[in-house]
Amino acid sequence: MSVYKVRFKPSNQTVLAPAGTLLHEAARSAGIDLNMPCGGQGRCGRCAVIVEDGNVRRRSSLRLSVADIEQGFALACQTLVEGDVTVVVPPQEKIERRLTTDKTAARVEIPLAYEPARDQPVRAFYLEIEPPSLADQTDDWSRLQRALRRRHGIHPLTTDLQTLRAMGPLLRKADWRVTAVLETDTTDTPRLIDLLPGDQTDRLFGVAIDVGTTSNVVYLVDLSTGKLAAEAADYNGQIARGEDIISRIVYASKNDGLRELQGMVIATLNRLLARVCKRARIGAQSIYRAVVAGNSTMIHLFLGVPPQSIRLAPYITVVNQPPPVWASQLGLGIHPRATVDCLPCVASYMGADITAGVVSSGLADTDKLTLFMDIGTNGEIVLGNRDWLIACACSAGPAFEGAGVEHGMRATRGAIEEVWINSQTFEPTCRVIGNVNPRGLCGSGLISLLAELFVTGVMDKAGNLRQDLGTPRIREGGHGLEYVVAWADETDTGRDIVLTKVDVDNLLRAKAAIYAGYTVLCESVGVDPADVEQVLIGGAFGQYINVEKAIQIGLLPDMPWERFQFLGNTSVQGAYMALLSRDVRRKIAEAASKMTYLELSADNTFYHQFTSALFLPHTDMNRFPSVQAVLANGRPVTETVGESTH
Amino acid sequence: MSVYKVRFKPSNQTVLAPAGTLLHEAARSAGIDLNMPCGGQGRCGRCAVIVEDGNVRRRSSLRLSVADIEQGFALACQTLVEGDVTVVVPPQEKIERRLTTDKTAARVEIPLAYEPARDQPVRAFYLEIEPPSLADQTDDWSRLQRALRRRHGIHPLTTDLQTLRAMGPLLRKADWRVTAVLETDTTDTPRLIDLLPGDQTDRLFGVAIDVGTTSNVVYLVDLSTGKLAAEAADYNGQIARGEDIISRIVYASKNDGLRELQGMVIATLNRLLARVCKRARIGAQSIYRAVVAGNSTMIHLFLGVPPQSIRLAPYITVVNQPPPVWASQLGLGIHPRATVDCLPCVASYMGADITAGVVSSGLADTDKLTLFMDIGTNGEIVLGNRDWLIACACSAGPAFEGAGVEHGMRATRGAIEEVWINSQTFEPTCRVIGNVNPRGLCGSGLISLLAELFVTGVMDKAGNLRQDLGTPRIREGGHGLEYVVAWADETDTGRDIVLTKVDVDNLLRAKAAIYAGYTVLCESVGVDPADVEQVLIGGAFGQYINVEKAIQIGLLPDMPWERFQFLGNTSVQGAYMALLSRDVRRKIAEAASKMTYLELSADNTFYHQFTSALFLPHTDMNRFPSVQAVLANGRPVTETVGESTH
Repeated sequence: MSVYKVRFKPSNQTVLAPAGTLLHEAARSAGIDLNMPCGGQGRCGRCAVIVEDGNVRRRSSLRLSVADIEQGFALACQTLVEGDVTVVVPPQEKIERRLTTDKTAARVEIPLAYEPARDQPVRAFYLEIEPPSLADQTDDWSRLQRALRRRHGIHPLTTDLQTLRAMGPLLRKADWRVTAVLETDTTDTPRLIDLLPGDQTDRLFGVAIDVGTTSNVVYLVDLSTGKLAAEAADYNGQIARGEDIISRIVYASKNDGLRELQGMVIATLNRLLARVCKRARIGAQSIYRAVVAGNSTMIHLFLGVPPQSIRLAPYITVVNQPPPVWASQLGLGIHPRATVDCLPCVASYMGADITAGVVSSGLADTDKLTLFMDIGTNGEIVLGNRDWLIACACSAGPAFEGAGVEHGMRATRGAIEEVWINSQTFEPTCRVIGNVNPRGLCGSGLISLLAELFVTGVMDKAGNLRQDLGTPRIREGGHGLEYVVAWADETDTGRDIVLTKVDVDNLLRAKAAIYAGYTVLCESVGVDPADVEQVLIGGAFGQYINVEKAIQIGLLPDMPWERFQFLGNTSVQGAYMALLSRDVRRKIAEAASKMTYLELSADNTFYHQFTSALFLPHTDMNRFPSVQAVLANGRPVTETVGESTH
Repeated sequence: MSVYKVRFKPSNQTVLAPAGTLLHEAARSAGIDLNMPCGGQGRCGRCAVIVEDGNVRRRSSLRLSVADIEQGFALACQTLVEGDVTVVVPPQEKIERRLTTDKTAARVEIPLAYEPARDQPVRAFYLEIEPPSLADQTDDWSRLQRALRRRHGIHPLTTDLQTLRAMGPLLRKADWRVTAVLETDTTDTPRLIDLLPGDQTDRLFGVAIDVGTTSNVVYLVDLSTGKLAAEAADYNGQIARGEDIISRIVYASKNDGLRELQGMVIATLNRLLARVCKRARIGAQSIYRAVVAGNSTMIHLFLGVPPQSIRLAPYITVVNQPPPVWASQLGLGIHPRATVDCLPCVASYMGADITAGVVSSGLADTDKLTLFMDIGTNGEIVLGNRDWLIACACSAGPAFEGAGVEHGMRATRGAIEEVWINSQTFEPTCRVIGNVNPRGLCGSGLISLLAELFVTGVMDKAGNLRQDLGTPRIREGGHGLEYVVAWADETDTGRDIVLTKVDVDNLLRAKAAIYAGYTVLCESVGVDPADVEQVLIGGAFGQYINVEKAIQIGLLPDMPWERFQFLGNTSVQGAYMALLSRDVRRKIAEAASKMTYLELSADNTFYHQFTSALFLPHTDMNRFPSVQAVLANGRPVTETVGESTH
C-alpha cells in the first residue's frame, strides 16, 4: 500500500498517510482537531477543508456547492488520500458561516456600468457663479437656478426653506463657488437639497435600510461609485417593548406607545448610521437619500403611522406605498432634507421586505418557475416568475425564532444553532453561537434537533419520542416525554436544556404552516410543487437553515438541493439596489402592484393542507422520497454510499 | 326773497333759511356744528353732507368725486339753499375717512362669478368610503385615493406624514365618512392636506396677508364664497427692533436677530389671525392657504431668510420668488400643512407689495398709460399699462413717515394729520387723529402744513419762512426760523410743536425724490408726464394724502384731480385677489417678470431731476399751472369763484 505525504496549511505540519486514509484521520495524526459534530457522517459540513494540491477521492460532498468543490473544498470526514496532498485548514469557526454570509456579500452587486447621474436621483454639481453687480441684480436663488440651467440644462428647480435661509451668506462666504446637491425625482420638479462651499461633489452618499422586527441593517453606499462603503446591524430597540409584531402593535395602541416605538427604531438606526459614518469617515450630512425596506408593521412604526388595523380583521394597513418624507420629519440622523423612500408593501402581512426581496432575489426577472420564501415569525411565500406573482403569508408563529419553545431563544450568543445525534448512542453534539456553554436553542438549532431526532429514530413521524431506547436523554417531564439536549453542568443556565412534546407540537405547527402555504399557492395556480425550478430563501434566519434537515422535518419541499439558494438579507439587498437604480425602484413598485395576495384565512384550503403537514415530514411520505430513502437505510443515504466505498 | 325749510337728518331739526344761505350757516342756526377746519374755504372737505332731497347750488365741489356728487354729497361751506331741502349730516369723524377707507373697502371685490373649484386650489370633498373587508384588503390610503379618483376624477394624489399618521384611526372613528381637504396645485400632484370626520366641506378658509414694515394686515376669506369674513390690522411687532427697513436688516445681521425678528412678525400675525378667527367664529385649523405680500425685506424676514445683501451694494435679494412653504415651517397660526405662498418680488426695493399692487390696482390690465405709486419710506413707482411696466424705487427717506422731522410721528393717536392756515391771520387749524391734544405731525399732516405755509405765502418756494408777517407763530429756533403749529398748552407733550428749516429740507428731499422718480421713469420711456392718463396711489399712507396739497408741494404731478385714485392697501388687495384666483396669481408673476427695474443709482439722470425738484413745487413753475393759478390769486382759485357768486 502506497504511503503519501499530507501537508496541512497554514501550520505546515506534514504527516505520512497510507492510501485511503480519511483527511480527518490524517489531520488528527498531525495534531489538528477538526470540528466534526456529526461524528464524521458527512452531514454537518463543519470539517470542510481546501485541497490545494494532489489527488483525493471524495466519497460525499454533502453541504458543498458545485462552486465550493471547484474552489477545492472537501469534507475531511468523507475524503480519501490518493497521493501527496496539500490541505488548507480554514479557521474552524468560519467554515459554516462561509457557506452563508459570504454568499450574502457576493449578492451585493453594483449594477453593471452604474452611472450615478443616470441611474439614481441624487446629483451634485460644482458651480462657479458670476457674482451680482449693479448691472445684474438678479436675486441669489434665480442666479443659482440660471447657472444650473445654463451649464447643466436643469430647469425648473425648486428648493426648501432651510436651503433658502442658508443660501445668501453661503454663496458670499464661498465666493460664489459652491456645490449644489439636487434630487432629480420623487417630485416632478428637481429640488435643491443642499448647497455646500467649494467643490464637494465627491461626498455623495445614500443608505439602504432594512427595518426588521428583530434586526435592523444599514448599508452605507457611495453614490458616486455605487459601492458599499460600510455596513452595520443591530437588534431593533423596539424588542424591549415586545418581541413580535403583534405585541408591538398592541403596545403602539397604548397612550404614547407609538411615539415611543418610533423613537426606539430611529434610535437604533441612528446608532447604526453613526457607526457606518465613522467607518467610512464621512459626516452623516453627506447622506442624501435613504431607501427603507421592512415588513408592513415595521414600516408603519418607522413612520409613526398607527398600525392597529393590521392586527384586527380584516387586517388592513394604513398605507402600502408611503409618499416620500424628509429625514428630519422622522428624526433620522442623515441630511435633514434627504428623502426617505419606503419601498412598497402589498398587504398587512406582505411587506416591503418581500417586494424588495422578490426583485433582489431575481424572481421578478426570471423565466423559471420560482418559489421565494422569507421564513420568520410569518413565513412570507411568493410563487411566480417575471410574468406573474402570487403570494401568501402563513402565521407560522414564533417557534422558529425561539419563542413558544421552552428553551427557545433568538440566534444570539449561547444559542445552540446546530445539533447532530449519534444514531447509535443517541447522544447529541451541539454547535453553540460564540462557542460558549449553551443557554437555549435558536431556530436553526430546533430544526436541526427535530430532524436528527426523527432520522435517528428517536422520534416518530407524529413527533412522539421513543421511550425504549435505553438512553437517559429521553425522560418523562412536566409535559410528557422530553429529550435532554444538554445537561445542567454543560449549560450556562445551570439547568438542563430540553425539548418537550409541547415544543415539538409548536414546531410542527410552524413548519406545517409554511409547507401548507406554498402548497396552497401552487394549487391555486395549478402548479405541481415538484415543477418549481428554484427555491430562493431570504431573510437572516433563512441564512442558517440546513436544507437537508429542513427537508427532513418537512419544512422545505423535497427537491434536489441545488434548486435551493440561500440569499441572506434580500430585503436590505433590494433597498440597496433600489437606492442605486430608478429601474429597480420601479420594478419593486411593479412587483408590488402585480403581486396577487392570497388571504389564507379566506377559506379552508389552507387548513386542510396544514393538518396534513403536521407530521414528520408529512402524512404523505411520497412527497418526501429523499427522506424515505434515509429512513429506509436507517441513516442518511450519503453516508451509506461513503461507507460502502470505504 | 324766498325762504326755504332746511331739514337736517338724523336729528330731524328743521330751520328756515333764505335763498342763497350756505348749508353750513343753516346748520349752525339749527345748532349743528359742522367741522370746518379750513374756515369755510372749500378746501378741506370735512363739512361734506348729503343732500337727500331739494334744490341746492354747488359753488365748488372740491374734494368730492363724481361718484360722491352722484350720491348727493355736497360741501356745506360751498352749497347754497335754493329750495326746501333735506340734508343728512354724517357722523363728523367719519367724513374724511369715507373718502379713503370706504373706497378701499369698495375695491375688495369678489371676482365676478367666483367658482371656488375652478379659481383657486383648495378644495374639500365629502366622501362616503366603502369599508375594507377580507375580500377587499386595500390599504386606507389607496382606498381614499380610489374614492377620490372614482367620484371626483382626482388622480394621482399625494399626502404628507402627519395626514397619514392621523388617517387610519380617523377613517374608522368617522365610520368612513370624511371630508378630504386637497390642494390642487403648487406642486404638480394634488395633495391631501387634511382629513376631517363627517361633512365639513363648508369650513374652507384662506388668508391674505400684507406684511408691511409698519403695519400688518390680515384678511380672512371664506373660500367657498370668496367673501371677506373678517379683517384685522396691527403694527408689525418688529418695530420694537427698528422703525425702518435698514435698521431691521442691521438688527437681523446680529447674533440671533433674524430669528427674533421672524418670531416677532409671526407673533403679530398670529395675534391678528386669532382675532379674525374669533370674529368669524372659526378655528384657525380651517385656514388652508395663505397668500402673502410685502416688500422684499419684509418677505425675507417673514421667511427667516437673511436680508443682509439687500442693504449693501449691489443690493441683492436672496430670493424674489420664494417657493411655497408650509405654515408649520414658519410657525404661522393656521393649518400646519397650509401652503404659504409669498407673492413675487422684483428687486431689493421693489417687492411683492408692488407686484400685488400693480395687479390689484388694475394697472396690469389697463390700456391707459398709468402711474402707480406707493409712497412710504421708499416711494415705489411703476409706469406702464397692460403691455409694459417700468419701475423704480426712490429712497425718499422716512420724512413722510414722521421720522427725520423734529416733531414727526407715525399716523397714530395724537398725530396732526391735516392742517389749514388762515391766510389772513396765519393761525393754523389742526385735525388730530383720535381728537386728542396733539403729540406731533404725521406724514399727511406734514404735507398739509407745508402746502398751507406755501400757498398762504408764509413760506417761499425755497422753503424759507417769511419773518415779516407779524405773527408769533414764526420765530427763531435752534435751527433757524421755525413755525409753531401748536402751543405747549394745547399739546399732549407740554411742548410747542414746531416745523423747523431742517424738517422742511428733509421733506423737500423726500418729495423731490418721488417727483424725480416718476419723471425719470417717464423720460426713460419717452413719455410726457402730462400724458399719464391715471395716477393710482396705493399704500396706507397714500390713503390719507390730500391731492391738492400734495400737488402744491410738488409731490404729485399737477394734473386734473380726477386722474388720481387712492386705492388704499393695494398690497393686501392683491394678495386677496391672488388667494381667490389662479389667474390673478399668474398675472402677478407675469407682472413681476415683465417689470423692468430701473436702478436709480446707476447714473445721474435721477440726481439732476432730484435737485430741480427741491423747491415748492418745482424750479420750473410751468409744470404746476394749478399752483401758479392759486398763487396768482393769493388764495385758492376755487374759493375765489365761490366768493364771486356769493
